[in-house]
Amino acid sequence: MQKSISTKTSPQLHADAQAESHVVIVGVGLIGGSIAAALRKRSPGCRITGIGRSMDRLKQAAAAGLLDDIAASPAAVDGLRGGLAVVCLPVGQIAAAVRELVQADDADLLITDVGSVKASIYQELADSEAALRRYVGSHPIAGREQTGFEFAEADLFVDRLCIVTGESSDAADVRRIQQFWELLGSRVHLMTADEHDRVLSLTSHLPHVLASVAANCVVGEMLPFTGTGFRDTTRVAAGSAELWTQILCGNRPYMIEAIQAAEQCLSRVRESLVANDRNGLEQILASASDIRHQLKVLDQTAGARNP
Amino acid sequence: MQKSISTKTSPQLHADAQAESHVVIVGVGLIGGSIAAALRKRSPGCRITGIGRSMDRLKQAAAAGLLDDIAASPAAVDGLRGGLAVVCLPVGQIAAAVRELVQADDADLLITDVGSVKASIYQELADSEAALRRYVGSHPIAGREQTGFEFAEADLFVDRLCIVTGESSDAADVRRIQQFWELLGSRVHLMTADEHDRVLSLTSHLPHVLASVAANCVVGEMLPFTGTGFRDTTRVAAGSAELWTQILCGNRPYMIEAIQAAEQCLSRVRESLVANDRNGLEQILASASDIRHQLKVLDQTAGARNP
Repeated sequence: MQKSISTKTSPQLHADAQAESHVVIVGVGLIGGSIAAALRKRSPGCRITGIGRSMDRLKQAAAAGLLDDIAASPAAVDGLRGGLAVVCLPVGQIAAAVRELVQADDADLLITDVGSVKASIYQELADSEAALRRYVGSHPIAGREQTGFEFAEADLFVDRLCIVTGESSDAADVRRIQQFWELLGSRVHLMTADEHDRVLSLTSHLPHVLASVAANCVVGEMLPFTGTGFRDTTRVAAGSAELWTQILCGNRPYMIEAIQAAEQCLSRVRESLVANDRNGLEQILASASDIRHQLKVLDQTAGARNP
Repeated sequence: MQKSISTKTSPQLHADAQAESHVVIVGVGLIGGSIAAALRKRSPGCRITGIGRSMDRLKQAAAAGLLDDIAASPAAVDGLRGGLAVVCLPVGQIAAAVRELVQADDADLLITDVGSVKASIYQELADSEAALRRYVGSHPIAGREQTGFEFAEADLFVDRLCIVTGESSDAADVRRIQQFWELLGSRVHLMTADEHDRVLSLTSHLPHVLASVAANCVVGEMLPFTGTGFRDTTRVAAGSAELWTQILCGNRPYMIEAIQAAEQCLSRVRESLVANDRNGLEQILASASDIRHQLKVLDQTAGARNP
């Protein structure tokens, strides 16, 4: 668990970088809608095409001003060439959407996504050289509890970190994806897909599992006896079981390791209670409190930098 | 884990109930200070005495208007007779403070507390008939992240639940403690100390342990890659390791059971991942999501009742 995080230095940004002229958003929900809203605010000349299963929902998003044109599939979009596609679908549907974009395209569309896992997407694309070449993984660490483009926020990505996994891609393509997220206000961090999945298994996916465990250990009639601690600790467990099953299964090897680490820590807590070892228990709680205080300091520093 | 919660019907409130004329607060921090602030607002004629180790801090609380008089110990307070004492100290110091109050008193002081565990306090008092007779346990489910009377809030207890454990006490004393919390704006629920500890092990103490486990599974350099999910899930882990060690050790038998329940749930998650059993995993996450949605509905109902 103590392995260090390997990172690549970000490529130097070109001062003369071009903003995107055509962005195709596949899946116009909260995140896809927020990308559209951010582009409207920060890149007003950009054409935004929305692709989705429900033409009704796409029409509503277009009427809300988020989209210029809409389509049921990439094949139905005119003038994809040279565009940037962002797949904002559940993790389990991303690879298929990338393939569809590659097939509809004449090999000149650059494709990224916003999925919470990365290595399994590369694995699903492993048999398609064209897909692997045109796909650069992204994971903006930003979100809200709500779903649907109605909750879209133009500033959702501002000052948030976006991880970009471009180890199998041309440097120019990685740079272009990096510039895209920076245009939306994010800071970009380059990692390998494997490194992303290892780190996120602990910083995001395991906390979701533990929140779900905490919620599962109470029964409904106990809920009146919960306070703010239970509310905070279990908040994310309200999320979609279907989407989170895809995320956890899409990060299986690291999730199994992460859960084993949590089981070890939990069993140390139990054993210290059984042995009435107050010092041992206090040490476990103190190291957790220390990590949480480090995060507060980090947030305050970031807040001071971006008041 | 599925045992139902046994409750006693609340005694009927007397319409002619007297407000307290003298309240002694032992430990004037956030909770003790908030009780003082609530009394100032809701019972202006009440004399409020503060007892604590630091006379400097007590003088500051008195200067802030929270206290009428201050003392280093119960023996130094004039006119305790007939008063109500509220012990607002860490769990590990409550029983000793109750004994001290009983000894200083001429057997006519009613004593309660705000501790997060209850049965171990009764056990610590088991050899003192006088203490057991004068002590009625309370646990207001209310709190804030901050510490110190500077953060005291007169409305901290409004619409919050306060559990009162009065099974070894006279009904009139239990009624008086109930009226005290109701004066401060709380709803009161009567439980046995044992029942309190069983329920709270799952609704409060286990979530704290799981938040600490989640925090302990990351290292400092991973913190930039955390989002709101990690922040929410681990928030309570920032709390004092010393205070929480007292709470968990003060509820040992039920905490060991609660942690075993969490370990079983966590191992089911791991086994479903190892077996790639998506349905099994989704069922676990869905039941957690369902519990969390039940809580949202409960909160909305309460919000509608108390807009």
